[in-house]
Amino acid sequence: MAPSQREASPKLKAAMEECKDKINTTIENLIPETDMTESPLFEAMRYSVLNGGKRLRAFMVIEGAKIFGVNPSRARRVAAAVECMHSYSLVHDDLPIMDNADMRRGKPALHKAFDEQTALLAGDALQALAFEIVSSDETHEDPRVRAELALQLASAVGMNGMCCGQMLDLIGETEKFDVGTISRLQRLKTGKLISFACEAGAILGKTNPAHRQALRNYAHNLGLAFQVTDDILDFEGDEEEMGKPKGQDAKKATFVTTMGSDQARQRAEMLVGQAKMHLHVFDEHRVSLLKELADYVLERRQ
Amino acid sequence: MAPSQREASPKLKAAMEECKDKINTTIENLIPETDMTESPLFEAMRYSVLNGGKRLRAFMVIEGAKIFGVNPSRARRVAAAVECMHSYSLVHDDLPIMDNADMRRGKPALHKAFDEQTALLAGDALQALAFEIVSSDETHEDPRVRAELALQLASAVGMNGMCCGQMLDLIGETEKFDVGTISRLQRLKTGKLISFACEAGAILGKTNPAHRQALRNYAHNLGLAFQVTDDILDFEGDEEEMGKPKGQDAKKATFVTTMGSDQARQRAEMLVGQAKMHLHVFDEHRVSLLKELADYVLERRQ
Repeated sequence: MAPSQREASPKLKAAMEECKDKINTTIENLIPETDMTESPLFEAMRYSVLNGGKRLRAFMVIEGAKIFGVNPSRARRVAAAVECMHSYSLVHDDLPIMDNADMRRGKPALHKAFDEQTALLAGDALQALAFEIVSSDETHEDPRVRAELALQLASAVGMNGMCCGQMLDLIGETEKFDVGTISRLQRLKTGKLISFACEAGAILGKTNPAHRQALRNYAHNLGLAFQVTDDILDFEGDEEEMGKPKGQDAKKATFVTTMGSDQARQRAEMLVGQAKMHLHVFDEHRVSLLKELADYVLERRQ
Repeated sequence: MAPSQREASPKLKAAMEECKDKINTTIENLIPETDMTESPLFEAMRYSVLNGGKRLRAFMVIEGAKIFGVNPSRARRVAAAVECMHSYSLVHDDLPIMDNADMRRGKPALHKAFDEQTALLAGDALQALAFEIVSSDETHEDPRVRAELALQLASAVGMNGMCCGQMLDLIGETEKFDVGTISRLQRLKTGKLISFACEAGAILGKTNPAHRQALRNYAHNLGLAFQVTDDILDFEGDEEEMGKPKGQDAKKATFVTTMGSDQARQRAEMLVGQAKMHLHVFDEHRVSLLKELADYVLERRQ
């Protein structure tokens, strides 16, 4: 991939920055500092979730919720839950028994900054916290919405979602997968949580099934595009910009190792085009940032 | 502790056996076998949850639900969720970076039977599955009940519950705790999930707050009694009956290491007496097995 000079538009950039700040405040309030004996658990959770991530998933929740006029403070809670879930997956993934990654976003990984036991527990507690947030009545007054959020979130990250994708990822270290299996792996490993993030606004807004489906389709394509660009970045990105060493996935089955980086890039472009098409059912001005986000995924450098 | 010859009454024994069989069937249906590439994840989850445990927590859910005439198949789903959650905690706890326990209930621990990566993922997926079960409409038609189950379960196992207890447990390996802190540790580490198990029937039965509180109080005392007897068994139990080596907790702060086994035993007896007292608000015949269960906790040998 020739390094693109394109960046997120000023409008998208500003919206993403604002989202990041607000979500960080929400998370800081949800994981309080404490001076109790167990404080390392809380510090570790905060360290891993408040580590300067781009909050792409949170942004999806926030923008999806805006389409349906959802109360922003509710959307932020769900966005925070998704970020907690995402962080837990990174923390466990970085552990020495998994990817053994020492660095994460330019800082020591959680098990390096603390220790492996604390990292394991902090990951476990972050998963539980995500469910605690979505099922709380502060997130929505309608219990049907809360139960649906919990159900869809659980389904996105469990044995038929993220954990299944992780398992396939492990197996892919020794088994050669075709493009179909890699697509399925990525759909499970990262795509399902991204789908939840995009769909959550529609659940909060109690909208019709067609609108929910449109957001799911958008997310499906965007999630795959995201993973393809991730593979490309791992293959040829700038280590300093990414904050982690590249080539970490070289031994694994990825889109790049399977189809080469040129074809992978074409595929990502096609997926982003399809993602944007699914948003046609909504008023243009309500989804302009989600469309820009899709383009940004294609052009991101980290 | 002089080894007691008392055993569970035939009635309690039969009820517990029946519960065990039915819960195992429920779990087998919830975690299907598969011939897909990811099958090791599903096998590992089944291996850890279907490993011959006594299903004390499931029994608490079932018996609690009976008080309020809850549909048994719904109660079994919640009981299965609690057992999945309990299993996940054992699997992560047994990992080499934590307790490094090779054996669990007389069989190789999950990370020995499979590998550490699969054990980590299976634990993660079991936690998610527990939430997926309770928030599904197959568990209750009233979304308020489903959301409340998810919320209470999350609160029981997260940063203010089980994970916090685990963190204290780790810290207790190097720091000397007083009895108050050990009580708090145990309340968090095992007590909160036991409380959820006892309270779940009341949530499913949509009963009044006083009844919910009574079951919570019963669980609080029973949970502590359970932990005290666990510490006693670890200190002087029969390795063959327990299926794991004893003395594993000798380096940790436990009730036995802090107050000695005689005093610990007295404390367990007092707690069981208090637990049974809280059940007085219910019809005697509806709670007779829960009372017997409390006595059994005191007398159990494994």
